[in-house]
Amino acid sequence: MNNPVLIVGSVAFDTIITPFSTGKHILGGSASYACLACSYFTVPQMVSVVGNDFDPAYLQRFKKRGIDLEGLQIDQTGKSFSWTGEYNEGFRSRKTTDTQVNVFESFQPAIPAAYKKSQYVMLGNIAPELQSHVLDQMEGNPFVLANTIDLWINLKKRPLLDLIKRLSLLVLNEEEVVQLTGVQNVIQAGRTLLDMGPEMAIVTRGEAGAYLFYPEGIFAVPAYQVVELRDPTGAGDSFAGSFIGFLASVERTDLDSLKKALFYATATASLTVEAFSCDRLETVGREAIESRVEELLSITQLEG
Amino acid sequence: MNNPVLIVGSVAFDTIITPFSTGKHILGGSASYACLACSYFTVPQMVSVVGNDFDPAYLQRFKKRGIDLEGLQIDQTGKSFSWTGEYNEGFRSRKTTDTQVNVFESFQPAIPAAYKKSQYVMLGNIAPELQSHVLDQMEGNPFVLANTIDLWINLKKRPLLDLIKRLSLLVLNEEEVVQLTGVQNVIQAGRTLLDMGPEMAIVTRGEAGAYLFYPEGIFAVPAYQVVELRDPTGAGDSFAGSFIGFLASVERTDLDSLKKALFYATATASLTVEAFSCDRLETVGREAIESRVEELLSITQLEG
Repeated sequence: MNNPVLIVGSVAFDTIITPFSTGKHILGGSASYACLACSYFTVPQMVSVVGNDFDPAYLQRFKKRGIDLEGLQIDQTGKSFSWTGEYNEGFRSRKTTDTQVNVFESFQPAIPAAYKKSQYVMLGNIAPELQSHVLDQMEGNPFVLANTIDLWINLKKRPLLDLIKRLSLLVLNEEEVVQLTGVQNVIQAGRTLLDMGPEMAIVTRGEAGAYLFYPEGIFAVPAYQVVELRDPTGAGDSFAGSFIGFLASVERTDLDSLKKALFYATATASLTVEAFSCDRLETVGREAIESRVEELLSITQLEG
Repeated sequence: MNNPVLIVGSVAFDTIITPFSTGKHILGGSASYACLACSYFTVPQMVSVVGNDFDPAYLQRFKKRGIDLEGLQIDQTGKSFSWTGEYNEGFRSRKTTDTQVNVFESFQPAIPAAYKKSQYVMLGNIAPELQSHVLDQMEGNPFVLANTIDLWINLKKRPLLDLIKRLSLLVLNEEEVVQLTGVQNVIQAGRTLLDMGPEMAIVTRGEAGAYLFYPEGIFAVPAYQVVELRDPTGAGDSFAGSFIGFLASVERTDLDSLKKALFYATATASLTVEAFSCDRLETVGREAIESRVEELLSITQLEG
């Protein structure tokens, strides 16, 4: 585990309402999910901010998974970011019903000196200017994966377009890639996205699986068929955290490793959504991930 | 090409309305699509009936593709089966607006002596009693693939349940497997289906690809990403015809061959839907199919 992964994103308290149950004030945020997922592969370096309501017990949960917290600011002047979301019947869509930005309002990610040479960087979902600001502080030429959401495509398209030119890999879902490129057909949209700057892109397509777009072609891994979906929150963040964690652990970013990482990312995200919050992700273990990767391989690979 | 495939189903005139164009009185029917698809792999033996309006030019089109027409009855007392269907915006659903059963009303499939020992049988979409009646006439122990549609699940569930116990492979789409088993989760529905009798099942899932269910597990092939969908009619029939044609051509029905057949079926169906009626399927050539199979393999298979 020589290669740490720098991960910037939110650490938050979520309130999540699903058709089956409600979780109030539970641990969430893109950096939480991504770091926990990444922790099964290598040391995540968390860059984020929490407020004066962030109980040390939560820090302990991160530490227990070997997450480096030097880059986690604790801002005593306010409360942690909090978000309330509600999933509809069949988890087909999600509605944000409340957002309290709190200490995230003035957050400026400051990268600790010890993180600046990290060769693997994940820019989790935060404003694109902040994602760029993180990159500005890095030394060397890291492999950079970024996520974003529809909010930034709507409100911050210019800074987002500037950012994505600097990326090794942009990870979006199906709706986001259509929104960002204006191209309806997802495969054509994925190719169009590559013309906009990132070296590669991943489009996550729900039941249709995840597609990696690289300059010469595409690669697809089907969705892992979750029997009991409990809470889809954090699926994309843990997907990305696992993806880059796997790459850092094998110390390779060649096409074959990227394809394998897609299996690991799919497997990890499928485990995340089987429980509320980070509950399952936090305790699941590398073996459970490997077992799902094996299953996905058996579902997709021909012999010899 | 030693192993012919007996294929029973409809030969029809279709009128097809899509959001982009309309095709009037064009060649259709489950046996037409299935036999044309199968013809790229081996000799299809067509068992069906047409009426006094079935121009010899149509027979010529079948003959040109090497289809054996000894089992195609020509009933001079009436017209051919005809069907009118309309696809909505985005091809998300289809509505039947007219059905003229015509000569199919009294159709009793009579299997020519030369077909009775065929080792590969496809029971295309016709009433389940007729599908069983075909099996009753077969000698030996053929590999039997069957299709059906929601109509028969609604109206003829009992005879359908009797039939599926006798099948090597039942091919359904996602909605049909949920309807037939009453199980909402598609993967659980697929497993439940195997308990109902067929040795194996395939569930076609649109954008999520096609899933093969066998006693020990599942295997998945993603959808081929068609750039211009023109007419989805016959996708399932050509999928099945290609699947069983491939098996007959390699003279094997082991699991590895079934997995490979899933790639061929997916590739062939993707070519079918790029033109109205059988237009593309009829002239496409084995090479175009092989090229899409190669593409699907490159999208899904890891090296080594």
